[in-house]
Amino acid sequence: MGDAVEVALSANAARVETALGAFLPEGEGYEAALHAAMRYATLGGGKRIRPFLVMESSGLFGVDEACALRVACAVELVHCYSLVHDDLPAMDDDDLRRGRPTVHKAFDEATAILAGDALLTRAFEVLAQPLTHGDAGVRADLVLALAMASGAEGMCGGQMMDLAAEGESLDIGAITRLQRLKTGALIGFAAQSGAILGKAPAHMRHTLVAFAHDLGLAFQIADDLIDVEGSAEVAGKATGKDEARGKATFVSILGVERARSQARLLADQATRHLDIFDSKADRLRQLAHWVVQRRN
Amino acid sequence: MGDAVEVALSANAARVETALGAFLPEGEGYEAALHAAMRYATLGGGKRIRPFLVMESSGLFGVDEACALRVACAVELVHCYSLVHDDLPAMDDDDLRRGRPTVHKAFDEATAILAGDALLTRAFEVLAQPLTHGDAGVRADLVLALAMASGAEGMCGGQMMDLAAEGESLDIGAITRLQRLKTGALIGFAAQSGAILGKAPAHMRHTLVAFAHDLGLAFQIADDLIDVEGSAEVAGKATGKDEARGKATFVSILGVERARSQARLLADQATRHLDIFDSKADRLRQLAHWVVQRRN
Repeated sequence: MGDAVEVALSANAARVETALGAFLPEGEGYEAALHAAMRYATLGGGKRIRPFLVMESSGLFGVDEACALRVACAVELVHCYSLVHDDLPAMDDDDLRRGRPTVHKAFDEATAILAGDALLTRAFEVLAQPLTHGDAGVRADLVLALAMASGAEGMCGGQMMDLAAEGESLDIGAITRLQRLKTGALIGFAAQSGAILGKAPAHMRHTLVAFAHDLGLAFQIADDLIDVEGSAEVAGKATGKDEARGKATFVSILGVERARSQARLLADQATRHLDIFDSKADRLRQLAHWVVQRRN
Repeated sequence: MGDAVEVALSANAARVETALGAFLPEGEGYEAALHAAMRYATLGGGKRIRPFLVMESSGLFGVDEACALRVACAVELVHCYSLVHDDLPAMDDDDLRRGRPTVHKAFDEATAILAGDALLTRAFEVLAQPLTHGDAGVRADLVLALAMASGAEGMCGGQMMDLAAEGESLDIGAITRLQRLKTGALIGFAAQSGAILGKAPAHMRHTLVAFAHDLGLAFQIADDLIDVEGSAEVAGKATGKDEARGKATFVSILGVERARSQARLLADQATRHLDIFDSKADRLRQLAHWVVQRRN
């Protein structure tokens, strides 16, 4: 089962890679470095889990694949921008990402800041273009949902909370809220985007958000376990950093064993939200189990 | 005439201030600093020239003022985010803005980066909300136009060009292109936004962009003159910095006298684009003359 989802993820990643490249033209003149940094930050790596969620969610509602692929790219552009900014010296100060120097190391800090800004902006540009959906109401809904997931009440708020809470002993409620904002909100957008594109009834959209909520927490706990147990070589990024920084994580609070069983519980719970969908949701079910088994 | 437009600008600024405040709630918990930094970056100052352009442009087409005010806020949120990021140590490294410490000085760098990100995101959120216009096609058009003006082919590209060209001797063509991207694109969005909101014919939208193009250059030359001639006390920001950095400006290329006459010429040219509009465009005409006379 893990193999099947990995094959599907890999095929999806290749497709997303091509589509992302088309949204990120090479630049020329004095701005060339900006365009190069945007491409460097986005292309050539990543499991593309958020785009996968968009494509699978869209499949549930028979959404045109070309439309879904544009939304998949938009959410990945936002994810990649967030990584560029999070890696900056003033934030998490990471030198390694996906096994390569981070953007501010490969370019410089100013270019990294601007590349992040421009990737975020490009995401909204892609969503608003008529090709994304024939119904402008759907396009506006997508923009609104992505903005809410990414901004001060979503991902940016979560990153702020993460920085502000460094060295503090968060309880399980606080860390759940932190992760819900920092990673859960964008995963939630990806999972519900098919329902927006397919103009599905509201309860189906809510169901997919609930699925994403459990999936996102399971994913985060698995990430925390990789940080504790994994080697940098396998993980493709620096490991053991949370502990070195005194960051509270699910693992530091629950311990390795309880964290692992909690991740499995959340993955099971995630799949149960999908009961209202038929076998079209099998890949999403497989994904939920895969995220807690992965080693990187 | 200068007085009349200053009274109008001031009345507009007060209105925009209130509206912006409503889009920037105070936060609580660990993210409180993010919300506070967003408010600090946006509220309590600024001439609000871009919002003024939105309101005056909207007035030409009888657009509902509450709708126009939301677009005015969106463009100002983008402008304020760009100032926060441009002021960062890795970029222009400014300590003073509007007579106050810059955001990374009043808070810290991480909070400034996140506040900029969240302000940009909020701008698209505001545009996409149904209250901005009853027609979702208009909302999607606004998002698309703002994204194009702000991203890699607009403002971000201009800032990259500005950083990359530091110390190089740009010619007048290169510096015109730089300013067209860095400041002109967003001013162009503001000026055309009323035509988008009012679903005006394309030629009117183009006319307003042409007006904005000349206005934006006139504005930039006036800014360069203030940098050379103004004191920090009057300008409310550090002056003389362009020369200290070896930045090519209109003034360094043309000299003070030719730059001043070029600014006046551009202001005249800007107003001539408005000939197709009646007296409803008088404020925009006054603005064009005012921008080249101002001292801060």
